[in-house]
Amino acid sequence: MSQKIQVGILGATGMVGQNFIRLLANHPWFEVTYLAASPKSAGQTYGEAVSGRWHMNTLIPENVGNIVVQDASNIAGAKGKCQLVFSAVEMEKDAITALELTYAAEGFAVVSNNSPHRWTPDVPMVIPEINHRHLDIIPLQRKSRGWSKGLLAVKSNCSIQSYMTPIYAMIKAGYKIDKMFITTLQALSGAGYPGPSAYDIVDNIVPYIGGEEEKSEKEPLKVLGNIDGNQIVPDSSMKITAHCNRVPVINGHTACVSVGFDGKKPSVDEVLALWKNFRSVPQELNLPSAPVQPIIYREEANRPQPQKDRDLDKAMAVVTGRLRGCNLLDLRFVGLHHNTVRGAAGGAILTAELIKAKGYID
Amino acid sequence: MSQKIQVGILGATGMVGQNFIRLLANHPWFEVTYLAASPKSAGQTYGEAVSGRWHMNTLIPENVGNIVVQDASNIAGAKGKCQLVFSAVEMEKDAITALELTYAAEGFAVVSNNSPHRWTPDVPMVIPEINHRHLDIIPLQRKSRGWSKGLLAVKSNCSIQSYMTPIYAMIKAGYKIDKMFITTLQALSGAGYPGPSAYDIVDNIVPYIGGEEEKSEKEPLKVLGNIDGNQIVPDSSMKITAHCNRVPVINGHTACVSVGFDGKKPSVDEVLALWKNFRSVPQELNLPSAPVQPIIYREEANRPQPQKDRDLDKAMAVVTGRLRGCNLLDLRFVGLHHNTVRGAAGGAILTAELIKAKGYID
Amino acid sequence: MSQKIQVGILGATGMVGQNFIRLLANHPWFEVTYLAASPKSAGQTYGEAVSGRWHMNTLIPENVGNIVVQDASNIAGAKGKCQLVFSAVEMEKDAITALELTYAAEGFAVVSNNSPHRWTPDVPMVIPEINHRHLDIIPLQRKSRGWSKGLLAVKSNCSIQSYMTPIYAMIKAGYKIDKMFITTLQALSGAGYPGPSAYDIVDNIVPYIGGEEEKSEKEPLKVLGNIDGNQIVPDSSMKITAHCNRVPVINGHTACVSVGFDGKKPSVDEVLALWKNFRSVPQELNLPSAPVQPIIYREEANRPQPQKDRDLDKAMAVVTGRLRGCNLLDLRFVGLHHNTVRGAAGGAILTAELIKAKGYID
Amino acid sequence: MSQKIQVGILGATGMVGQNFIRLLANHPWFEVTYLAASPKSAGQTYGEAVSGRWHMNTLIPENVGNIVVQDASNIAGAKGKCQLVFSAVEMEKDAITALELTYAAEGFAVVSNNSPHRWTPDVPMVIPEINHRHLDIIPLQRKSRGWSKGLLAVKSNCSIQSYMTPIYAMIKAGYKIDKMFITTLQALSGAGYPGPSAYDIVDNIVPYIGGEEEKSEKEPLKVLGNIDGNQIVPDSSMKITAHCNRVPVINGHTACVSVGFDGKKPSVDEVLALWKNFRSVPQELNLPSAPVQPIIYREEANRPQPQKDRDLDKAMAVVTGRLRGCNLLDLRFVGLHHNTVRGAAGGAILTAELIKAKGYID
Repeated sequence: MSQKIQVGILGATGMVGQNFIRLLANHPWFEVTYLAASPKSAGQTYGEAVSGRWHMNTLIPENVGNIVVQDASNIAGAKGKCQLVFSAVEMEKDAITALELTYAAEGFAVVSNNSPHRWTPDVPMVIPEINHRHLDIIPLQRKSRGWSKGLLAVKSNCSIQSYMTPIYAMIKAGYKIDKMFITTLQALSGAGYPGPSAYDIVDNIVPYIGGEEEKSEKEPLKVLGNIDGNQIVPDSSMKITAHCNRVPVINGHTACVSVGFDGKKPSVDEVLALWKNFRSVPQELNLPSAPVQPIIYREEANRPQPQKDRDLDKAMAVVTGRLRGCNLLDLRFVGLHHNTVRGAAGGAILTAELIKAKGYID
Repeated sequence: MSQKIQVGILGATGMVGQNFIRLLANHPWFEVTYLAASPKSAGQTYGEAVSGRWHMNTLIPENVGNIVVQDASNIAGAKGKCQLVFSAVEMEKDAITALELTYAAEGFAVVSNNSPHRWTPDVPMVIPEINHRHLDIIPLQRKSRGWSKGLLAVKSNCSIQSYMTPIYAMIKAGYKIDKMFITTLQALSGAGYPGPSAYDIVDNIVPYIGGEEEKSEKEPLKVLGNIDGNQIVPDSSMKITAHCNRVPVINGHTACVSVGFDGKKPSVDEVLALWKNFRSVPQELNLPSAPVQPIIYREEANRPQPQKDRDLDKAMAVVTGRLRGCNLLDLRFVGLHHNTVRGAAGGAILTAELIKAKGYID
Repeated sequence: MSQKIQVGILGATGMVGQNFIRLLANHPWFEVTYLAASPKSAGQTYGEAVSGRWHMNTLIPENVGNIVVQDASNIAGAKGKCQLVFSAVEMEKDAITALELTYAAEGFAVVSNNSPHRWTPDVPMVIPEINHRHLDIIPLQRKSRGWSKGLLAVKSNCSIQSYMTPIYAMIKAGYKIDKMFITTLQALSGAGYPGPSAYDIVDNIVPYIGGEEEKSEKEPLKVLGNIDGNQIVPDSSMKITAHCNRVPVINGHTACVSVGFDGKKPSVDEVLALWKNFRSVPQELNLPSAPVQPIIYREEANRPQPQKDRDLDKAMAVVTGRLRGCNLLDLRFVGLHHNTVRGAAGGAILTAELIKAKGYID
Repeated sequence: MSQKIQVGILGATGMVGQNFIRLLANHPWFEVTYLAASPKSAGQTYGEAVSGRWHMNTLIPENVGNIVVQDASNIAGAKGKCQLVFSAVEMEKDAITALELTYAAEGFAVVSNNSPHRWTPDVPMVIPEINHRHLDIIPLQRKSRGWSKGLLAVKSNCSIQSYMTPIYAMIKAGYKIDKMFITTLQALSGAGYPGPSAYDIVDNIVPYIGGEEEKSEKEPLKVLGNIDGNQIVPDSSMKITAHCNRVPVINGHTACVSVGFDGKKPSVDEVLALWKNFRSVPQELNLPSAPVQPIIYREEANRPQPQKDRDLDKAMAVVTGRLRGCNLLDLRFVGLHHNTVRGAAGGAILTAELIKAKGYID
């Protein structure tokens, strides 16, 4: 690759936008050349725009700090400045829906961290190790929408990523899972910034996250669905129930998972072997952000733990533990992932790498 | 009651023992007159023995601070000094088993916070609002063991108390629950002192508590069991599966609960009414430590929360919230209780009050 | 006292207002009869107005929950409903300045938790155990301002209350302190609600609180000042330097203090005796909210600690520890107080009790 | 450098030992070839020895996991296995004193993280950017002790490293500091493992760390001292007073510092320039673990903060902020460093790199 792909970030000043900038520093394929945000930030250098609210524990990359931030709604301004945009804009739902479509129509490859297009039937909601084939809908998306070279893909909600890859490893091996009980213990950063007040969460947990249980019960079905014509049809064979909790953890969503099988049931040892050996297209293609081993199993009785395991393999692995039987369903385990990396900016970057590798960005 | 019952505390210097002392200050029926602990503490005044390790956020009651601590294994020394002992000794399981039986044989009413006798068939494991009738086994216990006036009762593990009273309110109303999915988020104080290292739990959760899931899946069955001859036979109709997590909360265990009914199912409104109106024998007898309303339901979407709700009604109420349907079973809710008060020392004191009110201590 | 004084709370829906309501439940002298807040809350019952944002760990007192909230700027509406108002309004500084003066002019006794009038020369800034005599300015205040029975008193910033009573105990005994080095570790609740984001303070401290160091260096001088004519003239003999930090503690401000004396210096033992025996007018008058012992010294090497000591004596005591020499000045110690009780609502209530006891409210 | 220096770690299983192993993975000069610990761990592979108590958030380097742990007191066993040892043994003080001397006498270069030899007159206590010249004592140390090629150097206590480099930058520029007021807010990891109980530090701070204030007041004097004959004579011109606090932060010690000058005083701008341009021998020699810029100044009013700034420049920089005047002394600022990297294992590795670069290890 003689020249890097030029990348824009929409919503560059927010928490997710900052994570994009942090993770794209020194990326071998992508180079941040364009930053856009709300009109309030437009016209300032990025360094000025985030002064006093840069939330990352690294310094702002020097070349990025000097880029002048543009108004995200001025799409013409992005022309010629980048081919790929990561969208993390913070707007009303309808405004996001329209904005992302317009960028795609204007020829940009759009990979979005936002939720509005997750249920648009021809927009793939991608967890690269699982439903990489959903990207095959891109030619159909372009054709039906009259886009020449633009495209739109989104990532799923972060919370389901603590267990969907381990679940998929079993499905891929031929087991049919029809029931899932999920209880999540989710990190503060998942709520965006500022998120919960410290007064409300120190020495506390909050057993509720607005809208999260509904997403957790529904999004896995699309991820596990199939392309039919020019749309992705969700799986209909699985019933999921989710309790979602906020806990005083900075990064890293943990999930307690029970699964029930329809038909043959794997043993604990079979699942451990499946997880250990699980590799998928991102690993085969050796994508820059792909974890070497997508599912890391911790043998210790008290793992995984967010503080200790979230950063494994560039914070892109799913870490599991405590696989054992269940009195009511068949198997239980604990899953963990880094919600702002694997579950947000890092996952979107991996998706963009996959889109590039499949030849949809030139 | 012209004169207070004299009370001894075995294991007075530990965390639970300290809670007994804190909660019994100014108790209308009971007066702490005897303190026992390990030989290491024996011979010192209580104030000396706990110097630098008094973990309560109150001062040591003055009269208690001057009591000279005795060796808990010297049962003769307790004779004439107290009629009732609360046991919170920290010893090997077998030593506890023997010690508590000997105290009872020597004529003391023993109410234990320890686990060894929980599955002794003629020892009631009491949550006063639920299985107060299990105390009817005391005459049989005395007879078969040849005890004149001693007795032995224990409390259940703390973690199940976040939901067992709400569950029982439904059972009492005639609903049959045959499945329960439980995920707990348990407080640090439940691990005793020192418990988890701060290094391991700040910015973290630990998805494992040794032995806790087994207790959570089994103890409810005895609490819901029936006296048959001179033993308590556990219920056998309910299947429970539990995931237990440790979270950085000082006090207050939270549980995410899903329940499935065998036969007729109550509506959400019916359960809310059952909970609101639930009263039991401790309330009817107006026991000093009984919560006025044993089950408090919070209407807010994001409650109950340990930091904000654990102290309601003298920290003796069970606080519930988020009652709603469940995709896999029938109903879901969140339950909470204060684990060192309702779930430990306070619950044991309430049990002792009930034993007294039933005439078993004179 | 045959009838309770009727009390209004301005800013009743905020964090401090809620603390007033919590602390005034069952007060022997005062009865909450009037609640006012911003126009947004006006017209709703208090229970409706704070639904989902009642931050106390008690239930809303039933009689208060049904009071219809009024617009705080409608002073006429308060007439006849209360004699005394506690002000905790959240407004622009100028608006507070004017509002509190108007209430006083209209005949209300105003005790304010806000800062704008702290440096108004004829307004006493009261820490009852220290400068109770500053209330003697009330007749002069009334006379010069033409108020018949209204009055205005304020409390100091919370942070200085961790050490000013212990400092005053030395001054009262005749020692002259001319230098103070202060470093505070302040609780989250001191920042109001929502205050710091959890994302910014879990696994963190913030070495800055806007405006706090300036207040900490200046307010002690007025508290230690003298009435001269119709104004309070600050002390000018003491130099103070303060570093203020925010820490992940819910309630309780801690301060590390070094003091230097001009002239004779007390020994550690002398100061310990002074603190132990310190009593002041609130104790002599046996005011309902007065701590029995205003300064509690903890002998343990590692105390005071906010989590363990903030609630001592109704959370109204100042708790000290670690009194020892200092390489640069003369003595060092650690001080602690509960910032939302002693340092805010509780301190204001104690001030109002003192004003009542001195005969300025009828 | 054709071949790496073989390195042993004494106390390899403890918290500091684990940090050495984590930081030495892929080190360009050093290769871990020898691990020693207590007899309890001896004979197991390192992976077995730390199973369930590996506290790092990385996996154990594969080559290290298979090394068989030796008994640290068996010095003969280390012969030929390594030239350089890092000592982080957890033993009684006298045992450490003797053990480290024996390793040095046996020809090993010993760089110790322990405290016993900090005040041994001919043992340099090194902060590489400050007192690199103290390594010139090594030939004298060897001569007087009769060591052929062994040597012994130690690092200072971690807490002083949050400010000593910024202080030294001023001294190096010719300013004379004679007074320092320090208040530290120290991280949990500084207490070793397990360190404080979570029960004692969640929602809390502890205003005391045993022995830490004494070290903080004394160790800077040796670091700033001079070689005189074959000993290092401490500076005697500076008076320091320190308050040390433990806070619920995983890593990163913060210090609030006030300094007073004897003679000419630099302006804030002068100090900012001094800090920005400060470079020392580790930078000039381009040592592998040296931070590029040893002192990073944050312009934001509320920085540095441990959670956000501790990891800057490989966690080896000292981060400062809030430089301003002081009412009592001359200047105030806040300093921060990563206590287990810069302040412990990383600092010791940098010291060893300096020793190597100066030609004392072959």
